[in-house]
Amino acid sequence: MIRVGILGYGNLGKGVEAALAQNEDMQLVGVFTRRSPESVSVRTPDVPVYHCDKLADMKKDIDVLILCGGSATDLPEQTPVYAEMFNVIDSFDTHARIPEHFANVDAKAKAAGTTCIISCGWDPGMFSLNRLYANCILPEGRDYTFWGKGVSQGHSDAVRRIEGVADCRQYTIPVPAAMDAVRAGENPELTTREKHTRECFVVAKEGADLAKIEEEIKTMPNYFADYDTTVHFITAEEMQRDHSGLPHGGSVIRTGVTGMEKEHKHVIEYSLKLDSNPEFTGSVIVAYARAAYRMNQEGMTGCKTVFDIAPAYLSPKSGAELRAHLL
Amino acid sequence: MIRVGILGYGNLGKGVEAALAQNEDMQLVGVFTRRSPESVSVRTPDVPVYHCDKLADMKKDIDVLILCGGSATDLPEQTPVYAEMFNVIDSFDTHARIPEHFANVDAKAKAAGTTCIISCGWDPGMFSLNRLYANCILPEGRDYTFWGKGVSQGHSDAVRRIEGVADCRQYTIPVPAAMDAVRAGENPELTTREKHTRECFVVAKEGADLAKIEEEIKTMPNYFADYDTTVHFITAEEMQRDHSGLPHGGSVIRTGVTGMEKEHKHVIEYSLKLDSNPEFTGSVIVAYARAAYRMNQEGMTGCKTVFDIAPAYLSPKSGAELRAHLL
Repeated sequence: MIRVGILGYGNLGKGVEAALAQNEDMQLVGVFTRRSPESVSVRTPDVPVYHCDKLADMKKDIDVLILCGGSATDLPEQTPVYAEMFNVIDSFDTHARIPEHFANVDAKAKAAGTTCIISCGWDPGMFSLNRLYANCILPEGRDYTFWGKGVSQGHSDAVRRIEGVADCRQYTIPVPAAMDAVRAGENPELTTREKHTRECFVVAKEGADLAKIEEEIKTMPNYFADYDTTVHFITAEEMQRDHSGLPHGGSVIRTGVTGMEKEHKHVIEYSLKLDSNPEFTGSVIVAYARAAYRMNQEGMTGCKTVFDIAPAYLSPKSGAELRAHLL
Repeated sequence: MIRVGILGYGNLGKGVEAALAQNEDMQLVGVFTRRSPESVSVRTPDVPVYHCDKLADMKKDIDVLILCGGSATDLPEQTPVYAEMFNVIDSFDTHARIPEHFANVDAKAKAAGTTCIISCGWDPGMFSLNRLYANCILPEGRDYTFWGKGVSQGHSDAVRRIEGVADCRQYTIPVPAAMDAVRAGENPELTTREKHTRECFVVAKEGADLAKIEEEIKTMPNYFADYDTTVHFITAEEMQRDHSGLPHGGSVIRTGVTGMEKEHKHVIEYSLKLDSNPEFTGSVIVAYARAAYRMNQEGMTGCKTVFDIAPAYLSPKSGAELRAHLL
């Protein structure tokens, strides 16, 4: 049994918990939190909740620690700290800061002899893998990534900060015509606006100025100004009834050419349609937690990403079983 | 520069040749053939053609030998033999015999200190990888593989052996309704007939009994009897004009559930749309040839499959570049 700890019990922590229950070779030994442990109740029977300060005493009890905090402030601090004590895995997704985060974690992991995986999930994660494979197979080509239809928590949060907004759910929606053109191998040059639209479902506070809210959303720099955005005002009941899920998904597409005259076109597409973003992300992370443990057993220490991990390490099955049934 | 040899100059050998021209870190040092070398003319300038007997003298000149023979009789014999001399890579695709082929190649490669990759291409190959990743992420789920629309060379050959047939091109076509049901997460139980149809374009010899040919095709065991097959008789000119390409493709789809109550569905799909099956297969093989060379440099010897190879080995770029641009 691979003994796993979860640090942070938000949506992602709960997704990891659910994934662990589907993997018979993995055991959840504890959920760790910065909150008061009594205030957290987990769904797996007989799993204790500890304050995160307790982790330092549990080095011998945990094979892999899964960090379920946020990329903005939690992970840049937590991952290097816990890399000194455990094999750890995180879902750090601030693309621009990955090189720095990698270097910090790598130094700590190498010194401590742990195996740590950063930026695991689906993007970064499975989407990155598919970008890499497709780029290696078709060196002359072009990459496209489409996200959605799905809930963007960052955009939902941005709208919630607007005065008069009680709640918001923001859906990112790929433009079908753009995807069709890419799949047809037309290599279109697409602006931000041409690739995705945004749709906001907003619960306004009583007496709020709806026109002003809509205007503020549509003109918000970085988040909405470059997109065609639709805003719907709904009741709190409608929000609860119709928008309580966290679906997401998307497609990574690479088109390229081969042949002595580059006369043949090819399209490689990887796509995801997910009812629950945090549960799917948690499921990816749990498979990679198995890899972290096994690579550590084999002495492969330091910081890794999905690029550095042979796929067989993700599976509980033997090489012979995999070759016989999945190759 | 990684120095590459090609053994066998049929469709796949030509596809590998074209792929090598797109990879600046790889150099084609020679094409090897069982035929008379003078009878073979290759398309890359200044590349010599040798008889395959010459390979034994060229151990120091070739970093990776790419075997482009057939799975039925060539590769079971060739791959173990050349694994004693070179890092080799093949596209062995007789699924049932993979364990035996792996064991034969592994023994020779380990003894000789070479790194050999078998069963590389898209199925087995990229499709296998996607089956593995998806199975590890969604342990509770179901796999579907659809092939086509594309030319099946095995089925085309089978029809050509019928009396009165001068030429045939057979297309394997996935049934759209079946794919839609799978993508919708309906987990359908699909018979062979429900998943694919077959379409044959046949050039008959003069005076041949067309009705008899059609009947023989449609009732041929293993190849056609379990499918709905359409037969079209065309002229040799039409064959040349409309069916000279070797397009193929397909989709690997896994649907599965997550959540404490298994209440959330997910769909993972990897799909290929290829103008040229042999050139795409050759492109996959060339990326893995790079991996074979680099893993050998690092002392990772023996027989490998796509499951055993960390994705970063496929790329000419450094780990830091990959993390900065593709993660």
